[in-house]
Amino acid sequence: MTTGAPRPLKFSISGFPEYLPEHRQVEQRWLAIVAEVFSSYGYVNIETPSVEKVATLANKGEDVDKEIYALARLNTRGEGSSEAKLALHYDLTVPFARYVADHHQNLSFPFKRYQSQRVWRGERPQEGRYREFTQCDIDVVGNETISDFYDGEMLEVVMLALERMEVGPILFQISNRKLLQGLGEALDVADITSLARLLDKIGKLTEDAIHASLVADLGLSPEAATTCLKFASIRGDYADVVARLGEIGVGGPSIEAGLGELRRVVDHVGQAMPASFKLEIDLSIARGFDYYTGVVYEARFIDYPKYPSICAGGRYENLVASFAKKSFPGVGVSIGLTRIFTKLLSEGRLPEARPSPTDVLIARLPESDAGALLALASALRGRGMKVELFAEAPALDKQLKYASRKKIPYVLFPFADGHQIKAMETGVQSPFDRQSFSLGD
Amino acid sequence: MTTGAPRPLKFSISGFPEYLPEHRQVEQRWLAIVAEVFSSYGYVNIETPSVEKVATLANKGEDVDKEIYALARLNTRGEGSSEAKLALHYDLTVPFARYVADHHQNLSFPFKRYQSQRVWRGERPQEGRYREFTQCDIDVVGNETISDFYDGEMLEVVMLALERMEVGPILFQISNRKLLQGLGEALDVADITSLARLLDKIGKLTEDAIHASLVADLGLSPEAATTCLKFASIRGDYADVVARLGEIGVGGPSIEAGLGELRRVVDHVGQAMPASFKLEIDLSIARGFDYYTGVVYEARFIDYPKYPSICAGGRYENLVASFAKKSFPGVGVSIGLTRIFTKLLSEGRLPEARPSPTDVLIARLPESDAGALLALASALRGRGMKVELFAEAPALDKQLKYASRKKIPYVLFPFADGHQIKAMETGVQSPFDRQSFSLGD
Repeated sequence: MTTGAPRPLKFSISGFPEYLPEHRQVEQRWLAIVAEVFSSYGYVNIETPSVEKVATLANKGEDVDKEIYALARLNTRGEGSSEAKLALHYDLTVPFARYVADHHQNLSFPFKRYQSQRVWRGERPQEGRYREFTQCDIDVVGNETISDFYDGEMLEVVMLALERMEVGPILFQISNRKLLQGLGEALDVADITSLARLLDKIGKLTEDAIHASLVADLGLSPEAATTCLKFASIRGDYADVVARLGEIGVGGPSIEAGLGELRRVVDHVGQAMPASFKLEIDLSIARGFDYYTGVVYEARFIDYPKYPSICAGGRYENLVASFAKKSFPGVGVSIGLTRIFTKLLSEGRLPEARPSPTDVLIARLPESDAGALLALASALRGRGMKVELFAEAPALDKQLKYASRKKIPYVLFPFADGHQIKAMETGVQSPFDRQSFSLGD
Repeated sequence: MTTGAPRPLKFSISGFPEYLPEHRQVEQRWLAIVAEVFSSYGYVNIETPSVEKVATLANKGEDVDKEIYALARLNTRGEGSSEAKLALHYDLTVPFARYVADHHQNLSFPFKRYQSQRVWRGERPQEGRYREFTQCDIDVVGNETISDFYDGEMLEVVMLALERMEVGPILFQISNRKLLQGLGEALDVADITSLARLLDKIGKLTEDAIHASLVADLGLSPEAATTCLKFASIRGDYADVVARLGEIGVGGPSIEAGLGELRRVVDHVGQAMPASFKLEIDLSIARGFDYYTGVVYEARFIDYPKYPSICAGGRYENLVASFAKKSFPGVGVSIGLTRIFTKLLSEGRLPEARPSPTDVLIARLPESDAGALLALASALRGRGMKVELFAEAPALDKQLKYASRKKIPYVLFPFADGHQIKAMETGVQSPFDRQSFSLGD
């Protein structure tokens, strides 16, 4: 396994990934694993349009506004048509909130859904960051309340999906916005959102720059700013975190509540965690989006920690409330499928897949009866095989070469004096019996 | 089965369909059928980005240019950034052609692919027409040549997929651009593209208007224009069409070639055609896109012929050639999944699906051990069941009501003195045995 930076990928349209058939097969398999695992916990699939009204998307935090792609009809720009108010969604959380607000009368709560769709962000393409990418989101929302049982279930489900995808060792980091709230209360900082955004910059900006900003922009004393940085440097298991918070003297009811919820998450996933995964509490995890109010999650590749997070999410109380009069609190996680996939692709670590789904190629001979071949192909398909008919009747070596290039495992020769089947891997050719033949023979 | 106009559907964002979970389950099932049938003939799945360069998309015919959605970054409009040259694709044929041109050195020919993706057209939303919709495309392209065997295979595959989707009786109409070519040769019309576009308006414009346009715009004599309209009114089986072409005196090598190819298609699908489907040759079928050069296909609902076509495609010789120096002729068909789906949805004709995938809900009692319930749920999932754990422990009737609303078939009560399982449909409750229980018990 490589541990260095993945080799950069080049796509026809910069920032818009596109794969060869043999790689797409792997992506499809991953999407099927996500669907299977998520639905096995009772989460139902939905999709939302690729667009939302601009008013729905804008001002949700993390400076995404400037990355939003608006739609403008070609050749009619400036006409002020209604489409000017539509834009491609940049995540699946905001569209899901709008969906719940619009359809809540036809949904049953707690509503458990997953959603695997493309999203768009007009940022500069770079390692792990694309302008179009697929996210696999899983969320549960309640009507007015939602049990914190789901804080743990989220992590359990997402870990299981990633384990089945065999993407390598992953570090899961969790924190809780309530701890930040408690920090703010202890230091008399009212603007928790700005505090979260600033601490989210750790690793991107220097500690000195963040310290200066805490003092200048949030009005903290230098000592309080130092406490914030100490707080954000806390990481470890549950006992470590409790001890360190005591050392820096940050406590109170919000801290207690936040720690209690983290404890429940740790207990939930504790035993079932895959051996190659690690879970730690890391108080620098704040998540840039404003809407999180409780547990927050992030995940990274252990072998390449500088790579952007491959999984993220958290609990929100007010997200849907901005669209509906009722409150629909929830908790969710998003898997960055494209980000994970392109890393493995660039490292040549994707499992091998065939460039064609065909199991059996039926060769064509000059004397073949067209109708008989069609009927033979249909009969084999009816038994679950993927069967391709060679269209014309050139020399057999040409037909064999085609099968070999597409890695088709079997070639059937419909000789008039008895059909033969050739297993391409072994080269063994044997009489073909329509009733008894099965793949794997 | 209703035969009138479907009831119009209303969506949160006009022209952008969005479904409730129980309807999305049916759409997913249809997509799975398409994938299964298409791949069973050796077609491999690919996806392309949602965008192409504007230069790639523009000027392909059928007046789509003005319906193209270009991307413009919000708050940076007019900056002339590179994204200004990207637009959402309006079909999957043009992106596929660009894909083949870009990747042909890594593909094996004939290259058989299918592609189920969303496409976008900024037209006025109306019955069967949306701004965002899903198409399921199947195409095969050759390197320099492509056998006309595939003209028939296309129709066979698409018919099988639509039959399995159980969408009702369908009329398939085929024609051949070579017949139009022959008509043009017989009448001395050089601009076959304009002739095709005009005849494609039959049904949309009056015959008089088309006649006038043939004379005024294409310079035909009134008699020749009348022959064109007679030509375009020809429909029936192969023998009918041959006879009628003879009656109006249109013949020649292009007509012979076109008829020969249609004959092969009819023979190919002849016996295998589903009983509720009809196939006819209809010389008014011209397809608006410029790139077709041979057999063309369209399909419509028999019970509602005014509804826009639900399937369309044809053979092209030059499409990919506009991107690559080599020639990659091909043939393909597109299924208008959203158009079919929304019609059945609006008529209440979709098969019933559950709003949740859960097979077994494990109820929670105040005395339940959380870890034991998690382990029980995992064990059942390991046996292929979809299992949901109730998050908290309210009164059991509340938990049963939840299962009933979500149409979950089984509820498991983890009583300390022996687990019980209740089949919701029959109301029968019986002892639960972890080893022997299976769905369908």
